[in-house]
Amino acid sequence: MEQGRGGKGAGARGRPRSEAVERAIIEGVIKLVEDGVPLAELSIERIARTAGVGKATIYRRWSGKDEIFVDVLRSLEEPRAELPGTSMRDDLVVLVEHIRRRGLNMRSSAILHNVFAQMKSLPKLWEAYHTTVIDPQRRVVYDVLRRGAENGELRKDVDIVLANELFVGPMLVRTVLRPDAPLDEDLAERIVDTVLQGLRPQE
Amino acid sequence: MEQGRGGKGAGARGRPRSEAVERAIIEGVIKLVEDGVPLAELSIERIARTAGVGKATIYRRWSGKDEIFVDVLRSLEEPRAELPGTSMRDDLVVLVEHIRRRGLNMRSSAILHNVFAQMKSLPKLWEAYHTTVIDPQRRVVYDVLRRGAENGELRKDVDIVLANELFVGPMLVRTVLRPDAPLDEDLAERIVDTVLQGLRPQE
Repeated sequence: MEQGRGGKGAGARGRPRSEAVERAIIEGVIKLVEDGVPLAELSIERIARTAGVGKATIYRRWSGKDEIFVDVLRSLEEPRAELPGTSMRDDLVVLVEHIRRRGLNMRSSAILHNVFAQMKSLPKLWEAYHTTVIDPQRRVVYDVLRRGAENGELRKDVDIVLANELFVGPMLVRTVLRPDAPLDEDLAERIVDTVLQGLRPQE
Repeated sequence: MEQGRGGKGAGARGRPRSEAVERAIIEGVIKLVEDGVPLAELSIERIARTAGVGKATIYRRWSGKDEIFVDVLRSLEEPRAELPGTSMRDDLVVLVEHIRRRGLNMRSSAILHNVFAQMKSLPKLWEAYHTTVIDPQRRVVYDVLRRGAENGELRKDVDIVLANELFVGPMLVRTVLRPDAPLDEDLAERIVDTVLQGLRPQE
C-alpha cells in the first residue's frame, strides 16, 4: 500500500537527513489538519500519501504519530528567543515576550490553535510536547534567574522555581487560560518590572 | 419514555424548588460520569432515568445539559472562601489558597478531573463555567485589590487586572498547567508575600 517509497535497501543510517523530505511530511500533516482531519484519525499511511512518500520514509525519521505532531508544533513555534545578556531583567523580558508571541500566534493561526486544542486530550502527545519544547524553555529561565541571583539582581532567598512562576505565570494566564484577554505590546516589560519591584507601596 | 414524572400540570412556577430533587439529578450525572459515560453522550433522558425523575422535572430547573454540568461542577467546588478582612494581604492569601484547594481537589477527584478535561473541548460549557463560577471569583479579587489600593497596602500605579494576574497566575500555573507540580501548604502565603515584596534585592 506504499507509494513513492524511496531508498529501499539504501541504508537508512548514515545517509544525510533530507530536510526537504521532512518538511514535505510536516507540511502534509498541516494540510490535513487544515482540511479538518482530526489528529486522532490521521494515520501514518495517510500522512505518507499526502506527502508523496512511503511509510518507511516516515518511520525512518519518527517512531510514530506523536513524534511527528511534536515536530509539527515545533515547526510552528517562534524561533528561540535570543537573550540580550545585558541584565537578568532584559533577558526575562525577552523570555516572557516569547510567551506573549506564542500566544499571539496561537490566536491568529487556526492550525496551531486546532492542534493545541486537540493535543490536550492526547496525554502522550501533550507530555512529549512538554518534554521537548516547554521544559527546555523553562530551564533557560532557571539559568537566567540563577545568574541574576549570583550577580545581585535577584533576591537570594527566593526559590528559583517559584520565581519562574511569578514571571511567566501571569503571561501564561493571559495567553493560555484567557484567550480573549488583551496582549499589549508592553505586557512582558510590565510584568517583569512589577514583579521585580513588588506591589507594596515603597516610601 | 419518561419514568417517575412528577408534578405534571402542578404549575412549575411558584412551587418551592426541591433541593433534594436537584441533588438527586446532580448526583445522577456524577454517577454516570464516574461510570465512564462521556459528557457528550449524556442525554437528558439518561440523566432523568438515572435520577429517577422525568425529563420535565429536569427541564423545569435547567434549560439544557450545559447548565446541569455547570451545576455539577459548582457542587464539586470548595465552598466560597470567607475573607478575614484583616488586611488586603490576608484576604489575598485566602483567595489564592482557594485556588490551591481547588487544584488539590482536582488532583484527588477523578470525577472533577474528568469533567474538567472533557469540558475544555465543549466551548459553550467552558464559557458558562467561567461566567458563573470563575468570573465572580475574579471580581472578589478585584474588590480586595481596590480596597488595598485605597488603604495604602497596594501601589496605586498598578493596574488592578495585572495585579490580579500577578497574585493568582503563579498558583493557576501550578494547579492547571502543571498537574504534577507540588502544592505545598504555604504556597499561597509565599506567592502573596513575594509578589508584595518584589524579587529585587532590597538594601
